[in-house]
Amino acid sequence: MSFQIPRGTQDILPGEVEKWQFIENTARELCNRYQYKEIRTPIFEHTELFSRGVGESTDIVQKEMYTFQDRKGRSITLRPEGTASTVRAFVEKKLYANAAQPTKLYYIGPMFRYERPQTGRYRQFVQFGIEALGSNDPGIDAEVISLAMSLYQTLGLKSLKLVINSLGDAESRKAHREALIAHFEPSIGEFCSDCQNRLQQNPLRILDCKKDREHALMETAPSILDYLNEDSIQYFNKVQTYLSANGIEFEVDARLVRGLDYYNHTAFEIMSNAEGFGAITTLCGGGRYNGLAQEIGGPETPGIGFALSIERLLSALDAEGIELPINSSIDCYVVTMGEEAKDRAVSLLFEMRAAGLLAEKDYENKKLKAQFKAADRHQAKYVAVLGDDELARNVIAVKDMETGNQEEVQINQLIDYLRGRS
Amino acid sequence: MSFQIPRGTQDILPGEVEKWQFIENTARELCNRYQYKEIRTPIFEHTELFSRGVGESTDIVQKEMYTFQDRKGRSITLRPEGTASTVRAFVEKKLYANAAQPTKLYYIGPMFRYERPQTGRYRQFVQFGIEALGSNDPGIDAEVISLAMSLYQTLGLKSLKLVINSLGDAESRKAHREALIAHFEPSIGEFCSDCQNRLQQNPLRILDCKKDREHALMETAPSILDYLNEDSIQYFNKVQTYLSANGIEFEVDARLVRGLDYYNHTAFEIMSNAEGFGAITTLCGGGRYNGLAQEIGGPETPGIGFALSIERLLSALDAEGIELPINSSIDCYVVTMGEEAKDRAVSLLFEMRAAGLLAEKDYENKKLKAQFKAADRHQAKYVAVLGDDELARNVIAVKDMETGNQEEVQINQLIDYLRGRS
Repeated sequence: MSFQIPRGTQDILPGEVEKWQFIENTARELCNRYQYKEIRTPIFEHTELFSRGVGESTDIVQKEMYTFQDRKGRSITLRPEGTASTVRAFVEKKLYANAAQPTKLYYIGPMFRYERPQTGRYRQFVQFGIEALGSNDPGIDAEVISLAMSLYQTLGLKSLKLVINSLGDAESRKAHREALIAHFEPSIGEFCSDCQNRLQQNPLRILDCKKDREHALMETAPSILDYLNEDSIQYFNKVQTYLSANGIEFEVDARLVRGLDYYNHTAFEIMSNAEGFGAITTLCGGGRYNGLAQEIGGPETPGIGFALSIERLLSALDAEGIELPINSSIDCYVVTMGEEAKDRAVSLLFEMRAAGLLAEKDYENKKLKAQFKAADRHQAKYVAVLGDDELARNVIAVKDMETGNQEEVQINQLIDYLRGRS
Repeated sequence: MSFQIPRGTQDILPGEVEKWQFIENTARELCNRYQYKEIRTPIFEHTELFSRGVGESTDIVQKEMYTFQDRKGRSITLRPEGTASTVRAFVEKKLYANAAQPTKLYYIGPMFRYERPQTGRYRQFVQFGIEALGSNDPGIDAEVISLAMSLYQTLGLKSLKLVINSLGDAESRKAHREALIAHFEPSIGEFCSDCQNRLQQNPLRILDCKKDREHALMETAPSILDYLNEDSIQYFNKVQTYLSANGIEFEVDARLVRGLDYYNHTAFEIMSNAEGFGAITTLCGGGRYNGLAQEIGGPETPGIGFALSIERLLSALDAEGIELPINSSIDCYVVTMGEEAKDRAVSLLFEMRAAGLLAEKDYENKKLKAQFKAADRHQAKYVAVLGDDELARNVIAVKDMETGNQEEVQINQLIDYLRGRS
């Protein structure tokens, strides 16, 4: 019997994992510069958190969750996204009571959605996301967008498109909602049954419908931008001014909407323009959600954030042919001849590693030539050769693999010698 | 309605998460020195992998797994430990066919066991572990143990105790097994029903029994060390010689056993001696498992590894009163007065962060004094003060928070000024 990985999941192996490490380190470093602090929430939550926080009517909650009962019969769900858990922790742990506000958080970790597996889409995938909770300053909106753009740009992506929109405040949304109902109601019979349900429940989501996208009324539907009140216009203008001042190009697209009631003001997406990137071009989505904390039992708290998938990011890097600058060379590979030298190498390696050097040796009793080959595979900067003869004289032969120069060094001087050159 | 975290899990929040980051970075850095490469396997696997790889008869498999059915009715289990998944990936992805052997891997990630939650014990916990697959060299055993010890020592732990043992090879284990049966069989009626089952199935596990630990026959049970054959003795001696050469102290304890059939040769545990650390003192457990890859459908492959819990490590650091050297200061906090200055600060921050500086500002329209307080909370090295007056003259006032010195700097010189001093 041979065991297989579950369908729709992947092993990330050496050779590939270095890219993930590089991207995550870059994201963490950026978050540090922007003063977003990491939060780690559990892999699973009570199912109700996502029904409420992600939205009962969404595809995620209706079709894609890994939901099960624990041994006490509680309904538990593997988290399908990171915002609901983050806001749950913010409320439950009363982070809103801290002196330093807004609370700026980030997360990196696996999320789970039971979707049909396809190229670049997995049932377990990794999201990096940030959330700023507690500020209604449009400068925060610009900061959140800037951080996402900086990540992509730092990694070398060039074919990026940033699209922004405003959903306005509650008053603006209400006016727009009424206009949408008036627009669609007379012909709602021509729309799919989902849209018919959405008409009163949440008419904004009709604009997102994949089945009815070609209907003529879609094109002529009232734009949210025409229903923004004065405050909402000012807010949106300020966000745009800040983005421009940060040198970030963007397009405004009134069709970029987010259906849930607690979304408001800024919504944005970052897409890849790269040729051959495929049909799904969205790399990152985000926006303001001033109603979410309250929705899950907390105080009224403005919030904004984004989430992006590392898998999607890796595809975008591939599409642009970008090689991340990953260094996997080691400082020293120790080649040994004879039993005593082999034994001595065990503690020599221990000493080198304790001194902070990246060091390796053979563990398979390979011949000399094969040991040198292994040193090449490890991209060793130096190869140190130890035979029983050298051992008797307390020296070791050190070869600089770049220049080919070779020198004999006292064994107890080896670490200083290598340090002086690395 | 207010939402709560699932029982037995925890949120790791800013203020605490920095310790986790520090420990994980230290572990990753050590693995790099020792040339162990990261592997990331899925959070869940087919349940059979763990029944087979961890062992049908273990508490983990019998009582503690989070097992559920996915939407297709497949039995899926949240991983309770990391070795089975790692070896599954090694076999399935044919890592044994790579030129570079042994395959040296590490993992850091959440594991799941449905246990009674108690202080320091969680249902979701984080394990760091390494596995070296493909070498029967006792130098690898010493290396694996050394890496674990180095992690604890690098983090500052002093009250450590390393215990090692050998379970020998298959021949030695068989001889010992027969001796154990002969020893316990005549009085097996005095033992618990679990032990009665273990007698023929796996008599080694009788020694682990918590119920019968006080039985007189336990003390006099035959020691594995008396049944090691010549090869096994030589192997064990070599491991000890290498440990000593690495300057690592240890005790041999013949009672340190691991019940599963595929364990052999070296077994080890690292414990904390720290006062007040509590009843469970084991920080790390590991050993050789030359039969595991074959057990789950792969080629015969020697293997050795360890696993340790980050939660337990944090408790040990607490018990010894060790503060990790975590630096959370920022380079510059920008204080603003007036609307224009506030707007200008948005892009100034963006520029500073793009230049690699850690920078922050206020987003709540705080008064001057409150902004300075926030700068203190962020442990800012410099505070840059921008008023509409300074803005008009294109300068900014920079205060060194350590010395109290203040200078005016051209705004477009600010980054260079701060870089020159950080």
